[in-house]
Amino acid sequence: MNIVLLDPRQTQSDIWTISSKRQIEHLQTHVDVKIGDTLRVGIREGKRYLTEIIDISENSIQLRPLKEESIPKKLPVTLIVALPRPKVLRRLIMDAVTLGVDKLILIHSYRVDKSYWQTPFLQQLDHYVTLGLEQAGDTFAPKIELYKRFKPFTEDILPTLIAEKNPAYVAHPYAEQKMPFAIDHPCSVIIGPEGGFIPYEIDLLIKNGCQAVSLGNRILRTESAIPYVLGRLFGAT
Amino acid sequence: MNIVLLDPRQTQSDIWTISSKRQIEHLQTHVDVKIGDTLRVGIREGKRYLTEIIDISENSIQLRPLKEESIPKKLPVTLIVALPRPKVLRRLIMDAVTLGVDKLILIHSYRVDKSYWQTPFLQQLDHYVTLGLEQAGDTFAPKIELYKRFKPFTEDILPTLIAEKNPAYVAHPYAEQKMPFAIDHPCSVIIGPEGGFIPYEIDLLIKNGCQAVSLGNRILRTESAIPYVLGRLFGAT
Repeated sequence: MNIVLLDPRQTQSDIWTISSKRQIEHLQTHVDVKIGDTLRVGIREGKRYLTEIIDISENSIQLRPLKEESIPKKLPVTLIVALPRPKVLRRLIMDAVTLGVDKLILIHSYRVDKSYWQTPFLQQLDHYVTLGLEQAGDTFAPKIELYKRFKPFTEDILPTLIAEKNPAYVAHPYAEQKMPFAIDHPCSVIIGPEGGFIPYEIDLLIKNGCQAVSLGNRILRTESAIPYVLGRLFGAT
Repeated sequence: MNIVLLDPRQTQSDIWTISSKRQIEHLQTHVDVKIGDTLRVGIREGKRYLTEIIDISENSIQLRPLKEESIPKKLPVTLIVALPRPKVLRRLIMDAVTLGVDKLILIHSYRVDKSYWQTPFLQQLDHYVTLGLEQAGDTFAPKIELYKRFKPFTEDILPTLIAEKNPAYVAHPYAEQKMPFAIDHPCSVIIGPEGGFIPYEIDLLIKNGCQAVSLGNRILRTESAIPYVLGRLFGAT
């Protein structure tokens, strides 16, 4: 937690109040906050401030804003990921948000177990988005979309995301072309499930405008493939 | 698991035998192997082969090697990480191995809880190395070293790792210089604990030859910082 994210309603008066049990516990256990300390605070979907702690009680921490701070920019990327198993999903959402993904799309694929779509975590995405924003020091949630059917997504939605200067790359271990690096334009990146997309899916993605690209001859887990790809594509920016 | 890693002793005769319960269970549950299927197999610290399954029983799977395959190259990087909490450590070891880190060094730092050095996972590193190699399709374990004292490591060991064409970069959110990208030389990368190195530690690292570099203005978790940095540094190779 590198900033504390507040709801706009908590910042209406001159004195702001942290009342979330999770945030208060974190600040007391990991940061050991004291009156007079400064604290970075973001207003959800709004600005970010350096604040001063003016009161601490068991159930609330009171703050006074000192000065506005800049918010990190998003990466110009739409990340499209085959829904991973629930345990991985939580970390994946947090990491994608922390890394600054502008839009996240979760899709079905042949090797995605249908039970994954029933996980309660999908009802709690907002919580993991909050954790990711607090880690990054960001205040703006990325757009998140879910598509439970691969073919309609690939044929109807995906083509609307692709343009000449906005290509879509699907990571595929056996592609001959390599994933580009240090690009200076927006793009979509598609990451398959553990075990990969099946040939029919790769073919349909390519038919609908995707470029199949290889990340090299090491096969990465979904969770590590995402930061690896984003570092490779946008590390120069 | 993209290859099955065998001990050289299991590959002495013309017929090779998988006898590990973990490997057999994985192959039967996730891959649904059948007699006649091909299977990628690596010999620990040795070659990698495409093999054919010739017999399956409850406690063993028998193979016949068909042809040798190439092994992915290591990245020319020494990754130095402040020991993370045990749960993170396991994934970090696996990911560092999968990504192809040539040498991994775990060090102490002020913000590393001393209890982390007592975790049983540190006695099981070899298991997580095996999982990382099987994911990557690699057979060679990276060198792993542990240093429980920050100052002697930084003053006595670290300078021996640094040369003109082999710099050491320490990721530091407040550094003015940016982490380079797409480099064509070896290097060491140093990743601090959650909460970061303390100023004394950053100063000592710099005094001993490190360059403090920023990864941008998003603060990443250790686990996602590692693949992000490696994608950024070596994504072009």
